[in-house]
Amino acid sequence: MSKNPFTLAVCQLRTELVYEQTMQKTEAMVREAAAAGASLIVLPEMFDCPYDREYFHKFTAMGHEDAVRRMAAWAGENKIVLVGGSIPEKDGDRLYNSSFVFGPDGEQLACHRKVHLFDVDLPGMSFRESNTFTPGNRITVVDTPVCRLGVAVCFDVRFPELFRAMAREGAEVICLPAQFNMTTGPAHWEPSLRVRAIDNEVFFAAAAAARYEGFSYECWGHSMIIDPYGTPLAAADEKEQILYANIDLSRIAEVRAQLPTFLHLREDVYSVSAPVAKN
Amino acid sequence: MSKNPFTLAVCQLRTELVYEQTMQKTEAMVREAAAAGASLIVLPEMFDCPYDREYFHKFTAMGHEDAVRRMAAWAGENKIVLVGGSIPEKDGDRLYNSSFVFGPDGEQLACHRKVHLFDVDLPGMSFRESNTFTPGNRITVVDTPVCRLGVAVCFDVRFPELFRAMAREGAEVICLPAQFNMTTGPAHWEPSLRVRAIDNEVFFAAAAAARYEGFSYECWGHSMIIDPYGTPLAAADEKEQILYANIDLSRIAEVRAQLPTFLHLREDVYSVSAPVAKN
Repeated sequence: MSKNPFTLAVCQLRTELVYEQTMQKTEAMVREAAAAGASLIVLPEMFDCPYDREYFHKFTAMGHEDAVRRMAAWAGENKIVLVGGSIPEKDGDRLYNSSFVFGPDGEQLACHRKVHLFDVDLPGMSFRESNTFTPGNRITVVDTPVCRLGVAVCFDVRFPELFRAMAREGAEVICLPAQFNMTTGPAHWEPSLRVRAIDNEVFFAAAAAARYEGFSYECWGHSMIIDPYGTPLAAADEKEQILYANIDLSRIAEVRAQLPTFLHLREDVYSVSAPVAKN
Repeated sequence: MSKNPFTLAVCQLRTELVYEQTMQKTEAMVREAAAAGASLIVLPEMFDCPYDREYFHKFTAMGHEDAVRRMAAWAGENKIVLVGGSIPEKDGDRLYNSSFVFGPDGEQLACHRKVHLFDVDLPGMSFRESNTFTPGNRITVVDTPVCRLGVAVCFDVRFPELFRAMAREGAEVICLPAQFNMTTGPAHWEPSLRVRAIDNEVFFAAAAAARYEGFSYECWGHSMIIDPYGTPLAAADEKEQILYANIDLSRIAEVRAQLPTFLHLREDVYSVSAPVAKN
């Protein structure tokens, strides 16, 4: 399946209050994106479960196995690499905000547990994800048939160290399932995504949920696919849609030759981020 | 002189081909900003010398002592902290792109030598600063009467490690004399500045030169002053002007309480940048 260039798709979908509705809609979007030629498809953070503490617990009580089984089937049936956004994962007594990644034979390639939980107390936006979830403790970079892939989830984007560590591990495309909101979205979303791509000269695919107006947590939306020079290749508004971009991995070496960031790093002046613990 | 809040000014000036013209103009702008109440004034990168290899050598042959003496006098006479943009500094056989910082008694507080030299080979923009200059090898954070100040120069902004290291050293306001150009300016300038402020929850003052149309190196301009939440407080176009912003240092603690980035850092997952060598 190895092929370059390839098509990357981001499914910006609205999570419904009824799990089965969301899963059927998501399956249809994945099929549509695959039929349009996508080899790598990225879903939003908590795509199967409304982003609300009450729903986290209610949905986790059902277990995450059904969602994992279905995502594996979507990847295998459509012969794609699927970054399964994130879902609430239960492991013993602990819950994680986890991104499962599947290969084109339906095999699980990785599981990234969100490392930095969303604990904020902004005017008009307070949330304490750590009341529900346990943070992950590893960075995730994995070989797939289309690229070497890094995965992080939403609030993780605020930590440049995590992205530098992924790039130094060889990540070519970094996927970020996310749900910024109406407070942090307009203030921080687009520049943060673009600068992680610019700093590390990698492709960046940020998959946000579509906005659910009137729900307790209104997502900013605005999914983006960005090239290693920081140029947006595709950008969404807040509504449901599929974004597509042509990913030519040779662009990474081209940009790094033009602007040789990794040759300029000065470990004699400051410490440069590297993975301490990885999946 | 310690006072909070205080006024920060950025003098976006056009460097003339004749040194004396530039210095008289700069002195007038510094006086104007001080008269308007500024306590911290920031000048652009290479403000006294046209950004061109031929001029670097010609101006360095004159020595940097006159510029240093005049800047010290401007700081002392106006009772301000002056981040003297940068100038070509000669030290033995070596040249540096250096930012001298002066206190309100005219004393030199710091000298930051640009750590990352501008060596790029972009379409329409090739430059090799390292053909002329030697890179510095230390980060610069210094106490001043108005704030704890970090200084970096232009291309340094591409390295998140340098800014994290400065923030961890206690920098409250980071000043970046710079000259992005017509290629990298529209692509990278604004998001890079804003995200360094957002990541580190510090004030950020980027002082660009005004554009000199028709000169060999056309500067992007667009100086900005940004608050610790990433919000622009003042922003320029490409023409000569003075930007002002009211800096209330208590905003740093406020933003860090709302979005506690520094509590979320995960040294068990990746290495976090800290200074290895500092002035």
